[in-house]
Amino acid sequence: MNQVIHTLLNHRSIRKFTDRKLSQEQIHTIVKSAQQASTSSNVMAYSIIGVTDQNLKNELYKVSGHTHVKNNAHMLLFCGDLHRINRLANTEDNQQTIDNNLESTEQLIVATIDAALAAQNAAIAAESMGLGICYIGSLRNDIKRVNELLELPGHVIPLFGLVIGYPDHNPEIKPRLPIDSIYHENKYKPFAEQEQFIEAYDNEMRSYYGNRSSNTKLDTWTDQMIRKFSTPTRMDVTPFVKSKNLNKR
Amino acid sequence: MNQVIHTLLNHRSIRKFTDRKLSQEQIHTIVKSAQQASTSSNVMAYSIIGVTDQNLKNELYKVSGHTHVKNNAHMLLFCGDLHRINRLANTEDNQQTIDNNLESTEQLIVATIDAALAAQNAAIAAESMGLGICYIGSLRNDIKRVNELLELPGHVIPLFGLVIGYPDHNPEIKPRLPIDSIYHENKYKPFAEQEQFIEAYDNEMRSYYGNRSSNTKLDTWTDQMIRKFSTPTRMDVTPFVKSKNLNKR
Repeated sequence: MNQVIHTLLNHRSIRKFTDRKLSQEQIHTIVKSAQQASTSSNVMAYSIIGVTDQNLKNELYKVSGHTHVKNNAHMLLFCGDLHRINRLANTEDNQQTIDNNLESTEQLIVATIDAALAAQNAAIAAESMGLGICYIGSLRNDIKRVNELLELPGHVIPLFGLVIGYPDHNPEIKPRLPIDSIYHENKYKPFAEQEQFIEAYDNEMRSYYGNRSSNTKLDTWTDQMIRKFSTPTRMDVTPFVKSKNLNKR
Repeated sequence: MNQVIHTLLNHRSIRKFTDRKLSQEQIHTIVKSAQQASTSSNVMAYSIIGVTDQNLKNELYKVSGHTHVKNNAHMLLFCGDLHRINRLANTEDNQQTIDNNLESTEQLIVATIDAALAAQNAAIAAESMGLGICYIGSLRNDIKRVNELLELPGHVIPLFGLVIGYPDHNPEIKPRLPIDSIYHENKYKPFAEQEQFIEAYDNEMRSYYGNRSSNTKLDTWTDQMIRKFSTPTRMDVTPFVKSKNLNKR
């Protein structure tokens, strides 16, 4: 197993960091690594906002509720960004077509994929340096507030944060669904054929949650998912995205 | 520079592969690496379809138009997948709430991010083994056809492909926008402050396109983007996604 595969297979989210800071060079390497990820037709439909201001971290913490959002060595905020494209138009005619185009679901998908590919490169780069990371999707708990805090213009939406720092705990690697439930060959495997693997995973997770080194509980993946999705969540993301002139048509 | 950073910074898309096949072990390691990527609240809202059937590759090639879609050692198709969650419901009441929840833009974003994070791990794993990769967003040229070919159920959408194989050419690394145009600190940098970096990039790309080893042309990033976005593209993605009961509310 090479060093890269070793890094990928050993990922665990880190939620507690020491006080040690990152160097400017480390941050630069992480962002440059993010930039080198593939991007749809070279559009580079994302922006990365480095959060260094502790007051801003505190405000973002209020949205997320996770203490690692205020206590970390560095935080990157990944945004889908089609503002640049919107501003490149140079005639009234192409401004109109470009704006119409940017309003499609296709372009929301492009921006979301571009941002995520870049982010995962940043995550891997950081982990290869001995740093820990955690994605922060909970910034979408109040996406409008995050948008205001970062002063995002039209066609830019905050997607998620990535907190980075030197690990101050050593959590277990969390098991994933068995490969046979997410990997298919040539066509989609009906749910009936996935069920046995989900059941096996529920048993594995019951044991994982019961035995892990901290925060033990009695739970399964199925029960978690049913609880999670039985409550309407972040329904305000829809009108927010539209207010940015994205995903409107 | 460690081996991981070296792999990340040396990414180029590979569009021509030798006839050499991948071993089952290589494919397994690539998919396991994908699975270990972060996922929103452990939802794992994606599926990966390995394409081994040459007839299917040929059909997907007709959608994409790129020869590397039919000529590659392996192809992975990444789908946003909330079908599993939809099928976990176990009462009429939670079926209704879960279905409503899955229809939100938030859940389309979750599935798209989850699929992209997994895909980028797969890409990095493959590149670390000396393989080349290329993302295939052009499968969305006819997303409905791809959906039919793969027999995807409701709540599953094809997002993009990833073709993999041993490189049979050695393209240059494509320059990216200067770091100062995509990296911001604490708040979004207005477009007026990004413009100088975009201009510098246009000059760099003019020289890159004029001097690269194959397919030289006279072009800039700005001109490319204006041309690309001045034509309405993939407007059928919007109704297709809704037909899958995603992004409907």
